[in-house]
Amino acid sequence: MHDPHPPQPAAAGTAPLPATVLPAAEHAALRRALELAARGPADTPNPQVGCVLLAPDGTTLGEGHHRGAGTPHAEADALADAAARGHDPRGGTAVVTLEPCRHTGRTGPCARALREAGVARVVFALPDPGAAEGGGGAELAAAGIDVAGGPAAVGEELAESALDLIGPWYARAARPAVHVILKTATTLDGRVAAADGTSRWITGPAAREHAHRVRAGVDAIVVGTGTVRADDPALTARPAGAVAGPQPLRVAVGRRPVPATARIRGSDGRFLQATTHDPALVIAHLAARGVRRAVLEGGPRLGTAFLRAGAVDELHAYLAPVHLGAGAAAVGDLGVTTIDGALRWRTVHVDPLGEDVLLVARPA
Amino acid sequence: MHDPHPPQPAAAGTAPLPATVLPAAEHAALRRALELAARGPADTPNPQVGCVLLAPDGTTLGEGHHRGAGTPHAEADALADAAARGHDPRGGTAVVTLEPCRHTGRTGPCARALREAGVARVVFALPDPGAAEGGGGAELAAAGIDVAGGPAAVGEELAESALDLIGPWYARAARPAVHVILKTATTLDGRVAAADGTSRWITGPAAREHAHRVRAGVDAIVVGTGTVRADDPALTARPAGAVAGPQPLRVAVGRRPVPATARIRGSDGRFLQATTHDPALVIAHLAARGVRRAVLEGGPRLGTAFLRAGAVDELHAYLAPVHLGAGAAAVGDLGVTTIDGALRWRTVHVDPLGEDVLLVARPA
Repeated sequence: MHDPHPPQPAAAGTAPLPATVLPAAEHAALRRALELAARGPADTPNPQVGCVLLAPDGTTLGEGHHRGAGTPHAEADALADAAARGHDPRGGTAVVTLEPCRHTGRTGPCARALREAGVARVVFALPDPGAAEGGGGAELAAAGIDVAGGPAAVGEELAESALDLIGPWYARAARPAVHVILKTATTLDGRVAAADGTSRWITGPAAREHAHRVRAGVDAIVVGTGTVRADDPALTARPAGAVAGPQPLRVAVGRRPVPATARIRGSDGRFLQATTHDPALVIAHLAARGVRRAVLEGGPRLGTAFLRAGAVDELHAYLAPVHLGAGAAAVGDLGVTTIDGALRWRTVHVDPLGEDVLLVARPA
Repeated sequence: MHDPHPPQPAAAGTAPLPATVLPAAEHAALRRALELAARGPADTPNPQVGCVLLAPDGTTLGEGHHRGAGTPHAEADALADAAARGHDPRGGTAVVTLEPCRHTGRTGPCARALREAGVARVVFALPDPGAAEGGGGAELAAAGIDVAGGPAAVGEELAESALDLIGPWYARAARPAVHVILKTATTLDGRVAAADGTSRWITGPAAREHAHRVRAGVDAIVVGTGTVRADDPALTARPAGAVAGPQPLRVAVGRRPVPATARIRGSDGRFLQATTHDPALVIAHLAARGVRRAVLEGGPRLGTAFLRAGAVDELHAYLAPVHLGAGAAAVGDLGVTTIDGALRWRTVHVDPLGEDVLLVARPA
């Protein structure tokens, strides 16, 4: 599994945290930065980003936003604004809607610009989704600057607002950074439940144990809200000792309410509901929380949506020597009408697991 | 595979042969034996059987039929009738609706009775379906008596009439003698075709080659008439060299006409249409032709009927790493409504075959 970059606070706590987690001035500055970001052009190759520079006493030193490809990034724009106003950002705080970039494109890397400007603290709402090697936050932290980034640091509400603004861009950028495993556990005729909805157990103990080992190696376990309401899964990686760090993030996808008593909520705060049916936005939600590797465990609607979107990187098909002849199928309508349009996989390996068999495959 | 018992003429030729294959007197005698058989009680543990003894010149020496458990078998009844009429069956022909029994039950074995009576020839319409070790025909042939038995010897029409009379009994007796393999070749979601009916190819070359090797090891390949009409399969075991003896019998099950040009008919006469949807009767048809091992290759309706009837001894599930999301399923309604009623198998082995996997299982 990919390690989250070391000083990436986004990956640490992922619960819906109180919005008061940020000092009031930074909270207000981030709201303002989001307003500024929205002034930039949408639907360009670059995201809309806003930045506010605060003095140590919380007063505003400068404001900026990105105005489109080839123009300065929001951080540089805010630094220029502070300079134009005669303010020195040294010792202050940069509040940004997106993690400062580390790369050198047509403009210089923003992380270096902030470092060179002497800011003492950087706050951002969303981590850089494409930063496989660690984004600007890591570079800044390594330079001794105080960094607070991601939903856990700024609160779910502001992070959601940031994601609402640049969701499609963020989703595109995040796609390669999140490895999505689709798990199906079916009968030989592709069913996940009998006609009356009963489904325990289709696969045997060896397959279930294997699935738990897979859970222990991912950052997030994702199910649809329908599965939450039907099966009330705990979504923990058992045995507890199999997971070195915290348990994987438990994610419910969909708009149906998750009961307050649902086991998926757990007591460790590592629960998230993504109120969308768009796989790209689900991946964006995962990336915003530092997830690099996720397993989709059901139900059929969730898996089918990801398959249709081409958003599955690895398939784990557990097959039990069982026929049901009726009942819910693991895979729904894929929009495939003829055999030439079939969704074909490349088999990586086949593992007999007790009476069952696991087929692991990648997109062909 | 089980070897057909050596001198079992039923297994040799299985084509719809002209009814004139028997001398006219024997043909007439077999018709008469069927009439006699029908006089016996139906729905008893014993089958209805009739027997006519002919002199070498074709005149009738005696007639008999079975009148129920504990009473003499048809052959003994006919021998008694001949004796009562003062006729000597020596050198004559016994014409029976069912192969003379070899076992010693409450009455003596009929094969021995005929041998001891000195008949020179024995004709029977249907082979003994439960005779794993070889029936009375083999014993008589070994004793130098001329034996002509089964559909190939007496003609399809008379064999069918005999089967019509005792179909349910024959099916029960035949069930343990015929090893039925169900082959399914599906996507991971249990589909055998896309929504538009196209299906070539779901599994890859290695799986198809394996299936051909299985064909080479059975006595019959069975499909539904729907598959014949949709796919026009040749149902030969390729490569030709893989089959030492004749090609397996090709069987179409169902009432829809098989086109005169259908490839399943072939040119070797080894084709049969079983105009029934009852798996037990299909097995009876197979047993009547000496089939000891058959593979069901589709379509879904045929396989589902056999699964529902509990008439599958071995499952060959070829699974391709493909999703279709829609289209015909390999297995239709099994009457299973809840998970506890699932049709469960015991996995015997799992073979990766190229990109595909084969799961071989027996009833749990």
